[in-house]
Amino acid sequence: MTKNKKSYSIIFIGAGRVAGHLSRALHDAGHRIIQVISRTEESARTLANVFGCAWDTDIAKMLPDPDLIIFAVRDDALQALIARMDVGEASVVHTGGSIPMSVFEGKARSYGVFYPLQTFSAGRTPDIRKIPMCIEANTSGNELMLMDLARQISDVVLRVDSTKRLTLHLAAIMINNFGNHLLVLAQEILRKEQLSLDLLRPLLEETVAKAFDLGPRKAQTGPAARNDKMVIKKHLDLLSCSPEIQRVYQVFTESIQHHMEKGK
Amino acid sequence: MTKNKKSYSIIFIGAGRVAGHLSRALHDAGHRIIQVISRTEESARTLANVFGCAWDTDIAKMLPDPDLIIFAVRDDALQALIARMDVGEASVVHTGGSIPMSVFEGKARSYGVFYPLQTFSAGRTPDIRKIPMCIEANTSGNELMLMDLARQISDVVLRVDSTKRLTLHLAAIMINNFGNHLLVLAQEILRKEQLSLDLLRPLLEETVAKAFDLGPRKAQTGPAARNDKMVIKKHLDLLSCSPEIQRVYQVFTESIQHHMEKGK
Repeated sequence: MTKNKKSYSIIFIGAGRVAGHLSRALHDAGHRIIQVISRTEESARTLANVFGCAWDTDIAKMLPDPDLIIFAVRDDALQALIARMDVGEASVVHTGGSIPMSVFEGKARSYGVFYPLQTFSAGRTPDIRKIPMCIEANTSGNELMLMDLARQISDVVLRVDSTKRLTLHLAAIMINNFGNHLLVLAQEILRKEQLSLDLLRPLLEETVAKAFDLGPRKAQTGPAARNDKMVIKKHLDLLSCSPEIQRVYQVFTESIQHHMEKGK
Repeated sequence: MTKNKKSYSIIFIGAGRVAGHLSRALHDAGHRIIQVISRTEESARTLANVFGCAWDTDIAKMLPDPDLIIFAVRDDALQALIARMDVGEASVVHTGGSIPMSVFEGKARSYGVFYPLQTFSAGRTPDIRKIPMCIEANTSGNELMLMDLARQISDVVLRVDSTKRLTLHLAAIMINNFGNHLLVLAQEILRKEQLSLDLLRPLLEETVAKAFDLGPRKAQTGPAARNDKMVIKKHLDLLSCSPEIQRVYQVFTESIQHHMEKGK
């Protein structure tokens, strides 16, 4: 941290994966995590011990006058916590993809969103500098502060309003959750023939590289794209004992063909 | 190539992407590509020029007595070409994922399949040593020869019968074609808000790494997996102008929930 940068005092509400990764990155950038508040004593204490800071399980016990309060909690817990918070002059943000910034309206003077576009897991450490940080703020001064803070931990910082953020969140869910689910289905199909999903890893890595190299529209190949009815029928027959995977196959085939038509 | 390895004389039928990558790899392993036969003069000549070998557009002009003939053509062209071929004593294979080996029955004495589990594109060169080569053969002697040949170009060589191969092909289509299509859909959604798909690349790369690290079942997260009806509704509302993407979203959400139930 350069000597001119301000070191903020930060309180984390939540001690899960997003809180764990963000708090470490902000700590490493020279900021002071002064308290962790979480539902369970164990998770609050475990994360607080990383920084040697205070912890609590009750949001009413928040330390006074931090510079920033970061809510990194489940969407469905956020509203109830906000109703009970008393933030004084502190700036307050949440880290959710699908919750509008307006959730803080009337509850704080200075508020915003600090949404990292990544999937976090315990035991895995993605390179935080490559993770897009999506910032929204209720005042331009607050925005400057949050953008500056985000740039201290990431090379990709964007200003996005709540609608854009929901769109990013939706696209992220499709890529992460649905993409992963395709692997679940593929694994299930392969298991019946005692084949390992690992065999498909080189193909998947090339698929990703090719899609970003050529653009996904140009990279699209296969029986659906070329309307190869013979191969499609063989696949559907092979899936006859898994009607639910068969349905996914059919919907995808139709969607690919719909887009090939549109692209003409 | 070590001095004890036999150098085979090989004819390629087809001059597309699979033929291009396989023929170069076999050439680099010390084998002789002696002829390329393809529908169009240009593609046949272009690939043949890489090896300084003969080329033709007519399968009836095949050079006599090669050691191996490799059909790397579209599925729908294969049968007609096989009907017209005269292979003598040569071993003959095709490279298709969904065509049974039996397509060669009665047409050759020594036949099999040499299926590389990868997507090939012009201008992209995936590391061939990591590509699983799936081998099937009609005799054990022929199988030994093909397995040995495959090991000369790849570190991952499997013996798979036609049913297993079709299963691998189906799983490959789901991962490659359907996975790529998810990127097409995500890009379409993002474009409406002037957002770039590149923003999602770190997420996608982490998704892949995490799925192979934890296994895709354990890696599954998101609104469908935790049945977060509020977020699902927001996403479906956002997709109200794209009923066809909405349908993909809905089918995936149901399929994920179906699998979460099964996994309990």
